[in-house]
Amino acid sequence: MEVAKFFDTAPDLKDRVLINEKLKEFVKRHSHMRGESEMCERRIVCITSGGTTVPLEQRCVRYIDNFSSGHRGAASTEYFLKAGYAVIFLHRRGTCQPYCRFLPNDPLLECFESIDQGGSIIRPVQSQADAVTNAIMDHHTAIETGLLLKLQFTTVFEYLQILQMIGVALTELGPHAMFYLAAAVSDFYVPWESMAEHKIQSGGGPLNMHLVQVPKMLSVLRKDWAPQAFCISFKLETDVDILLQKASAALEKYNMHAVVANELETRKEEVTIVTPDEKTCIRRDKADARSDVESPLVKLLVKMHTAYILKNVQSQGASN
Amino acid sequence: MEVAKFFDTAPDLKDRVLINEKLKEFVKRHSHMRGESEMCERRIVCITSGGTTVPLEQRCVRYIDNFSSGHRGAASTEYFLKAGYAVIFLHRRGTCQPYCRFLPNDPLLECFESIDQGGSIIRPVQSQADAVTNAIMDHHTAIETGLLLKLQFTTVFEYLQILQMIGVALTELGPHAMFYLAAAVSDFYVPWESMAEHKIQSGGGPLNMHLVQVPKMLSVLRKDWAPQAFCISFKLETDVDILLQKASAALEKYNMHAVVANELETRKEEVTIVTPDEKTCIRRDKADARSDVESPLVKLLVKMHTAYILKNVQSQGASN
Repeated sequence: MEVAKFFDTAPDLKDRVLINEKLKEFVKRHSHMRGESEMCERRIVCITSGGTTVPLEQRCVRYIDNFSSGHRGAASTEYFLKAGYAVIFLHRRGTCQPYCRFLPNDPLLECFESIDQGGSIIRPVQSQADAVTNAIMDHHTAIETGLLLKLQFTTVFEYLQILQMIGVALTELGPHAMFYLAAAVSDFYVPWESMAEHKIQSGGGPLNMHLVQVPKMLSVLRKDWAPQAFCISFKLETDVDILLQKASAALEKYNMHAVVANELETRKEEVTIVTPDEKTCIRRDKADARSDVESPLVKLLVKMHTAYILKNVQSQGASN
Repeated sequence: MEVAKFFDTAPDLKDRVLINEKLKEFVKRHSHMRGESEMCERRIVCITSGGTTVPLEQRCVRYIDNFSSGHRGAASTEYFLKAGYAVIFLHRRGTCQPYCRFLPNDPLLECFESIDQGGSIIRPVQSQADAVTNAIMDHHTAIETGLLLKLQFTTVFEYLQILQMIGVALTELGPHAMFYLAAAVSDFYVPWESMAEHKIQSGGGPLNMHLVQVPKMLSVLRKDWAPQAFCISFKLETDVDILLQKASAALEKYNMHAVVANELETRKEEVTIVTPDEKTCIRRDKADARSDVESPLVKLLVKMHTAYILKNVQSQGASN
């Protein structure tokens, strides 16, 4: 009910047709790359990244935003590609892109210099030359080999509408599909119909805002959109005392296969993978300045996904 | 009272010392460039650009944001530099930069290609080569000639604290200083002390938020920080019926020298300059696809600033 109402009252998704075409083409191409055995089939992971916004006005001037740089999603995309996955990178416009993590925020102005030798030439500054060249080359390779599909969102309405489309598109992959839900999704929103059409006026003293909860779509993803897919969600808290308890609750409530628990201050150093059976703390290698927590995290999740596929294939075999 | 409380309870501004040093050095350098007559003195304009955020939690995960791409501020910076002004570009992190308006959102990944000829080389794609090269060259020239100082903000706390520092630093320029306040500043905020320390929990049903008005700092800027500076503020509305009336009210209430009224839908096509004496509609030249409304807008404001300086110099002369 709540879910149907959310989608019914959400503003129309622009580019719905185009997004659907891209998705179908991507899934079709990779479903054709089937190997000899079930285990060799191409796996597709949908990685969500960055924060969603909630408009406070229909002609949007003000909105509530969820902080997320998108570094986690971008780094994880690189490691899943390396592990042989095809990746749908569903990210917030303007957030960190795969292979661009080590560049400054404004690489064009900070990493290039101009030299004027008869004509005007630009080139990467020496200190950034490798980082810039690698970012451009690796990113283009991922796109050109057809292994990376990038889709963008800004609002929570766009995010959930596209996520639903991806869920449905990946259904046919069964357990070979994975969702890695690293995006910071708004918990509260103002229903479109009850939203002010025009800019809220500031003359009338203090402002009281009434927000309602965004329906918990994780349950719907698991139950209806892609019931066989391997689903990982993330739980971010600032209060470490309640973090693991909240992660365990989410695991059970939304029937996830694992929840990655991370605390705002230490999220780049360590995370804990919470499953029904155990809690595994993953830390980055502090001896290596360029190491990150996403590399061991993705490695472990790929292993868990392999085990999940095997179990599903066996149980299907048994039931045949 | 309200103003003092806002600043007293705001979180400390990081880099305060560094920002102050940069400001002092910039103002000192340009104050030394005085010409023969008062009219030839270097003018400095502070251009504010992009939207401010209001954190909803002390360890900030969620915040309210004001939409603004920063195109207006970036374009205006180019035209003020062309008119001979030194520019302090106080902008929201990540928004549009001067000379970069005609580039795609992610120029590094969208404007470059890699060619592998023995070694790896990157170069701008042909269709974007001129835009990319000009952006980098023009931007570097503005920085290297010392005419452009870039300062960044994210929250409304940072914005107002830096604006105050700029106001005080520009006092000594008297009427040769100008404020061009194009930033979209939050009207409402949650006072730091009454803010939740940790992430707001979503378990407890709907969320009611109580926000109070941000004190109207334009009055303080005019009265206390830089009383002789020429001050232009902007009024954005989505409802054209109340736009001019709101602009006139702001002109009087904050004692601005002019208010630029713009409507969300048409803001790239036309604006109206509202002064105590008249309302002047400025339109971009539709016959030229590359034209913009900022070019004629800045031209007219520079003229008005010249007249303002002249009037001030004459009245000072008369009172001496």
